Amino acid sequence: MNIYDVSEKAGVSIATVSRVLNGNPNVSEQTKNKVLAVMDELGYTPNVFARGLGLNTMKTIGIMCTDSSDIYLANAVYYTEHELRIHGYDSILCCTGYDLENKKKSLDLLLSKRVDAIIMVGSKFLEPKHSDNAYITAASQQVPIMLVNGFLEGSNIYCTLCNDYRAIFDITNALIENGRHNTLYLYTSNSYSGTRKREGFLRALTRHKLPIREKYMQMCKKDISDSRDTIARLYHSGLTIDSVVTSDDSLAVGALKFALSNQLSVPGDISIVGYNNSILATCAEPELTSVDTKVQNLCIHTVKSLMSIFKGYNVPARTILSADIVYRKTTNI
Amino acid sequence: MNIYDVSEKAGVSIATVSRVLNGNPNVSEQTKNKVLAVMDELGYTPNVFARGLGLNTMKTIGIMCTDSSDIYLANAVYYTEHELRIHGYDSILCCTGYDLENKKKSLDLLLSKRVDAIIMVGSKFLEPKHSDNAYITAASQQVPIMLVNGFLEGSNIYCTLCNDYRAIFDITNALIENGRHNTLYLYTSNSYSGTRKREGFLRALTRHKLPIREKYMQMCKKDISDSRDTIARLYHSGLTIDSVVTSDDSLAVGALKFALSNQLSVPGDISIVGYNNSILATCAEPELTSVDTKVQNLCIHTVKSLMSIFKGYNVPARTILSADIVYRKTTNI
Repeated sequence: MNIYDVSEKAGVSIATVSRVLNGNPNVSEQTKNKVLAVMDELGYTPNVFARGLGLNTMKTIGIMCTDSSDIYLANAVYYTEHELRIHGYDSILCCTGYDLENKKKSLDLLLSKRVDAIIMVGSKFLEPKHSDNAYITAASQQVPIMLVNGFLEGSNIYCTLCNDYRAIFDITNALIENGRHNTLYLYTSNSYSGTRKREGFLRALTRHKLPIREKYMQMCKKDISDSRDTIARLYHSGLTIDSVVTSDDSLAVGALKFALSNQLSVPGDISIVGYNNSILATCAEPELTSVDTKVQNLCIHTVKSLMSIFKGYNVPARTILSADIVYRKTTNI
Repeated sequence: MNIYDVSEKAGVSIATVSRVLNGNPNVSEQTKNKVLAVMDELGYTPNVFARGLGLNTMKTIGIMCTDSSDIYLANAVYYTEHELRIHGYDSILCCTGYDLENKKKSLDLLLSKRVDAIIMVGSKFLEPKHSDNAYITAASQQVPIMLVNGFLEGSNIYCTLCNDYRAIFDITNALIENGRHNTLYLYTSNSYSGTRKREGFLRALTRHKLPIREKYMQMCKKDISDSRDTIARLYHSGLTIDSVVTSDDSLAVGALKFALSNQLSVPGDISIVGYNNSILATCAEPELTSVDTKVQNLCIHTVKSLMSIFKGYNVPARTILSADIVYRKTTNI
C-alpha cells in the first residue's frame, strides 16, 4: 500500500496527496481531511509517507542497543550500520543500558535528532511488564520502530526474530536421540528470546516423554566463571549431567572449564552446546558446537524491511528467520 | 585558565565576557574585539567557553568508533558512554568503518547534530598521511576533539593514550630475561599504537644486544586462523620460536592453537602473550598471560578531561596511562 493507493481511494491526484503531506496551503480543508482520513484508514501516518517521498528526511536512522560491550549486540549494531550505509542512510547509536528510564531518555534523544526510524537491537529492550513498553508504542506514532530479536505488537512496529525456540528444540532433540537423557539447560535471561529458548528445551523433553526437572534448568550470569561454578555446584551435589545446552557461548566455555578441571572428557562424558556462534566458539578448545543465529541476516532483513516501509509497501509485522547449528568438537552427534 | 582569566586579562567584568559569548549587542565593538583577542591569545574558542557556561549546549557528545564489532572498541564505547551518562551527558555514536570518506561523513553528521564535543575511540582514526587528518583539525575549531588511544597534535585536540611501548617492552624484556631469545612478534596494524608497540619490542631486543630479524616480526589479520597459519608457516620453514608476543588476544589464541596441533607444550616449549586482556584471554585453555591496557581508565580519563575543558580549565594535550601485565598460564615468568 502506498501513495497511489491513497490517491485512488481518496479520489484525488497524487500531486494533491503530496501537497497534503507537504502542508501546502493550496488544498481545500475538505480535500485535506479526506486524504488524511484515508491514510488513517490504511493505517499509515503522514510521516511515513512523507519519508517515502523523500520529503523532510535527514536520512538518518537511530539505533538503540542495551549494551555495546556484549559481543552479540556489538555484531548486530555493526551489521545494521553497514547495511544502512549501503542504502545511503547514516545512523546514530544510543547505548541505553538496562535501566528503563535511560531507555526512554535515549529514545527521546534520538527523536529530538529527527531520525527517520528507530531500530532497537536485542531482546533486552522489552520489559516483562507490558505497560512499561508504552513509550515504544508512543514513539511508533512518529516513526517506524524496528525490533531486532524482540517482539512487541503495534501498528508501525516491525519485528525480525530468530527462531530461538526451534534452534534449542532441534539441538536438545538431537542430544536426546544421541542417548543423552540428562541435559542441563543453562540460560541468562527471561526476555522474550530467553523464554522462547526455554520453551524449545521443554518441548524436546516432553516430545521424548522425559521428565521435566527444575534442577536441570539453571539461570546464571553471562560469565564464564559463573557458569563453571554453577555446573560444579550441581555436579558435586550428585546431579548426573551428560550434556549441557546453553543460551550463550560464554556459558558453554564455562562448561568446558568445568569438564577440564574434573577430568571429564568432552564430548564423551559430557556434550556441550553454545549459542550465538561467536568468536568464543572457535577460541575454545575443543571448539564449540554452537547455534548460529545468523545475526547478519536478521540485521539485513530489518534494514530491507525499513526501506520497503519508506517506499510505502506493506511489510509483515513479524518475520521469523531460522538459525543454523554449527557442529564442531564438543558434541558427537 | 577560564572565564575569570579572560575577564582579568581583558580588564572587563565577567558579565561582559559572558555578553560577548552570547552575542549580546549591548557590548561596544572595541570591548568585544578586546575580549576575543584575549581568548585567542589564551588559545580558547568562544564555543568552548560558552559550553563551560552551560550556554547553547545540547549536553550531547558524539562518539566515533571505526568498528563496533571489535571487542576492544566495543568495550571502550561502553565505558565512554557510561562515564558520560554519570556526568549528565547523552551520547550518540557513529561507527565509521575504516574508509576515510566515511570517517569524514560521520564527523559532519555528528557536528550537524550539534554535539558539544567529539570523542574518537581507537587508534585506527588517524591516517598515516598527515594531510588526511586535516578534517579532524578543522573540526577542532568547532568543538573539542578527544582521542582515545590515538595521537594528533593541534589546539583543542586532547589525547589519552595507553603506554603500549612500555607494555610490549616490559613483557618482551621479561621473556628475554627468562631465557627466551627467539621471540616472534605478531601484530595487526601500523597505526600510531601499532608502531609504538613494535618500537617497544625492538627496544627490548637492542637492550639485550639481540639481533633484529625481520622474520621475527610478522603482520597478520586480527583472526585466530590467520595467526595460527602464519606461525605454522614460519615454524615449518625451520624458524626456531620459543615465545610469541602479540598485539591482540586473538593472535595469541591462534598461537595456542598452533602449539596444540604441533604437540608443543605451553609455556614449556613456547610462551605466549596476548594483548588487551579481553574475554578471549580467559576463554582460552590454558588461560593467556595478557597485557591489560585498562581501557576503562582511558575512557574515564578522557571524559573527565572533557568535563574540565567545558569548565575552562587547562588540560594537557596528551596523557599517557600505563598498562598492567596479567600473568596467567601461558608464561612461566
